Amino acid sequence: MISREFLYENVRNRVLDMIDTGLLYPGEKVPSLRRMSEQLGVSISTVMKAYVELERTGHLETKPQSGHYVSGSAKAAVPSPPAFSTASEPMAVDLSGLYTSFMRAMTNPDILPFGAAVPSDELLPSRELSRLAKKIGDENPQLVHSYGYAEGEPALRQQIALRMLDAGVSVDPDDIIITCGATEAINLALRAVTRPGDTVVVESPCWFGYLLMIESMGLKALEIPTDAERGPNLEALAEAMARFDVKAAVLQPNFGNPLGGLYPEETRRELCKLLGRSGVAIIEDDIYGELSYEGKRPKSLMAHDRYGMVMHVNAYSKTLSPGSRVGWIIPGRLHRDILRLKISSTLVTARLPQLVIARFLAEGRDIRCLRKLRTAIRSQTATYSAHIARYFPEGTVISRPLGGYVLWVGLDPATDGQKLYKDALRNRIGIVPGMMYSSQERYTNFIRINCGHPWSGRIQEGLKTLGALAQEATG
Amino acid sequence: MISREFLYENVRNRVLDMIDTGLLYPGEKVPSLRRMSEQLGVSISTVMKAYVELERTGHLETKPQSGHYVSGSAKAAVPSPPAFSTASEPMAVDLSGLYTSFMRAMTNPDILPFGAAVPSDELLPSRELSRLAKKIGDENPQLVHSYGYAEGEPALRQQIALRMLDAGVSVDPDDIIITCGATEAINLALRAVTRPGDTVVVESPCWFGYLLMIESMGLKALEIPTDAERGPNLEALAEAMARFDVKAAVLQPNFGNPLGGLYPEETRRELCKLLGRSGVAIIEDDIYGELSYEGKRPKSLMAHDRYGMVMHVNAYSKTLSPGSRVGWIIPGRLHRDILRLKISSTLVTARLPQLVIARFLAEGRDIRCLRKLRTAIRSQTATYSAHIARYFPEGTVISRPLGGYVLWVGLDPATDGQKLYKDALRNRIGIVPGMMYSSQERYTNFIRINCGHPWSGRIQEGLKTLGALAQEATG
Repeated sequence: MISREFLYENVRNRVLDMIDTGLLYPGEKVPSLRRMSEQLGVSISTVMKAYVELERTGHLETKPQSGHYVSGSAKAAVPSPPAFSTASEPMAVDLSGLYTSFMRAMTNPDILPFGAAVPSDELLPSRELSRLAKKIGDENPQLVHSYGYAEGEPALRQQIALRMLDAGVSVDPDDIIITCGATEAINLALRAVTRPGDTVVVESPCWFGYLLMIESMGLKALEIPTDAERGPNLEALAEAMARFDVKAAVLQPNFGNPLGGLYPEETRRELCKLLGRSGVAIIEDDIYGELSYEGKRPKSLMAHDRYGMVMHVNAYSKTLSPGSRVGWIIPGRLHRDILRLKISSTLVTARLPQLVIARFLAEGRDIRCLRKLRTAIRSQTATYSAHIARYFPEGTVISRPLGGYVLWVGLDPATDGQKLYKDALRNRIGIVPGMMYSSQERYTNFIRINCGHPWSGRIQEGLKTLGALAQEATG
Repeated sequence: MISREFLYENVRNRVLDMIDTGLLYPGEKVPSLRRMSEQLGVSISTVMKAYVELERTGHLETKPQSGHYVSGSAKAAVPSPPAFSTASEPMAVDLSGLYTSFMRAMTNPDILPFGAAVPSDELLPSRELSRLAKKIGDENPQLVHSYGYAEGEPALRQQIALRMLDAGVSVDPDDIIITCGATEAINLALRAVTRPGDTVVVESPCWFGYLLMIESMGLKALEIPTDAERGPNLEALAEAMARFDVKAAVLQPNFGNPLGGLYPEETRRELCKLLGRSGVAIIEDDIYGELSYEGKRPKSLMAHDRYGMVMHVNAYSKTLSPGSRVGWIIPGRLHRDILRLKISSTLVTARLPQLVIARFLAEGRDIRCLRKLRTAIRSQTATYSAHIARYFPEGTVISRPLGGYVLWVGLDPATDGQKLYKDALRNRIGIVPGMMYSSQERYTNFIRINCGHPWSGRIQEGLKTLGALAQEATG
């Protein structure tokens, strides 16, 4: 006869597994006592005992008349990283060397893909897109290979205009300019509104791509402390604007990289007012906007803009096809300037990838595809997070993203993140060192982990090894 | 009975037609007396009489013991445009408005395509490339849609390195960086070696794309008089360099746009020395290098470079697929800088177009394709030229290109080229007004004609209308 103790452990482990692997997410309802009893073939009282114990250890919580829920506390044991509180002096940036090394690691298939913020191939509709490419090539090979429009394919711009309605923005297809990914869009926007020596506001931490552009254009980055829940610190921003002649701000209101947060409504309104009334160009990078774990696509900052100062930037690189390099910008009254810059930067965007994505969108195939993707990355991120909490040294903090692919992981302040990056690479594990998220040698004890790849034994092993390396690096 | 006079006219017209339509090119042998007599069913003496008359009017010439040849004089009646002789002051550039209008006309299929310098779709291997795209998509759809390398696909760089040997340049595939067309390559090169306010040497006349970039970067264009046969005026260049602090030169030694000339060996050597020893970066745009009418691919300026100052820029936009946007740069010792700029400009180049062209090259299919293209455009350019000489006002001058797609046509100095451009557009004829080839309001009486489209009645009508409009514009 099997002992009651064993049966009880069985239930407990099942629930912990479901939490660990992201099958159950904080705030979600755990299977009812009856259901679990049936599934595992144990008595209801055994399940009840296990649930009470899990409540005691902080993994579950009860809601009156409703049942048991996964508490935030499985992660709450791991606090999210604190933001620093005042803006820095504007600084010239020097990160390219590190970035080149990182890019090289990112494209090596032998290296565990915790580096670049991209989903695994299997989560993307590559096969469907390839079929469409075939079809379009058969229908009109000459169209595909002739120069297109500097503004981009009309059919694509029309589909994008339709989808912008979900982001609370009503634009004419002619207001949209197609670019070689979001990178070109941001690059053109910055070039349109700044001159060398100018100051540009960025979040801190922020995507290193911005810092590289700022470096390459001879601009200065002004880093504003940013919190996943509250967005950029508006007081710090106002103070900085009083001290420096800020020309532009590059922001990610929706599931920004690396924090994965969402600016509150109030912050959006205030931000648009504060920057807009000072004539500061707001470049909104919404590349993760479609990747909400909740499923609801948040609004664009453009929806709050009363001053015509927001330029919206986006791309299909994080949702449909990184390799197609199809992005766009809605430059508002700078349309003419941006189009000129586009012409002198890359003339036109590659035509076939535009035609393929336009057709994919026109057939409405992106809807199902995005739903599948959101479900997968929500679960993956939870699973990765749970294992980082398990394997990493005590004192580790982990971000609690609401969307996107990445976790922002803070280690003991004495940890040398760059050394950890190199040690990890030696163990064939790619990560991004936190210092790349600032021009100020901040975040040296942070790393960013991409959770875009489905959970597997290899990935679990990788995180375990990374945890051990982090432990070593702490000393 | 048919009169001898009629038969004689018959022979004469046949030869003139062959010259006009480019079936016979200046310097080529005319069918022998016997052959022509058989083909037209007339006596040898009638053919002889016609040939002698054609010699008298300057259309044919004889070589002893060899027969009759098309003389240069069918065109020599139309002189090529003279170059001006001293360099200008460096100037800020303002051409974008005109360019935007021109780009719009260029993408309208209802407008006769004498504008953009591109071949007709039917001269490009669009169908073959589309078949390869299908194949590659079937083999590995996930590869196609994932991020590639910032440097570009290794397989493509390998094929390009092989072909660079024909241009007299031996490079490692890792010395090559793939870009979104030649436009991005030139843009990156200019950004790597200049700062706003710097002076950049260009040919005069030169492709307006350079002038647009120079404008967008806040640089100054220093125009050096350039002659189709002798290349840039080196004395004028040396003088200008003594007066101004020149940082870079953008040049087209091989079949440049719009002149279609070829720098002599001596000019190449001197140019590399003059600029190289002053540390002036030489950006060689070789986009027409493969389009020699003679069939022999001329050398890259890199082959003459002893100072490490030449950056080679190229693309497949004029030879295989304009819409694919696949170009490259060989930046030499600026490799690191250019790669950084590439990353912050467009991150990576679209992957599928790179993979398709790499496969096309690996299978050696470009060789036959280029041969066909060269033959076609050589004949087309001759035909267009002959008809311009026929339909345009007296005093018109026409360039005599050795390669490429375009003719540079000079009208009476009093002609308003911009008005002609607008009149032509109203008649659904696209041309490029000459004033776009300078920042100095030069070439206002010039137009550029693309000869990339096979000869047809519609095109003949178009040139006839254009000639009539030019006649009107002269008054």
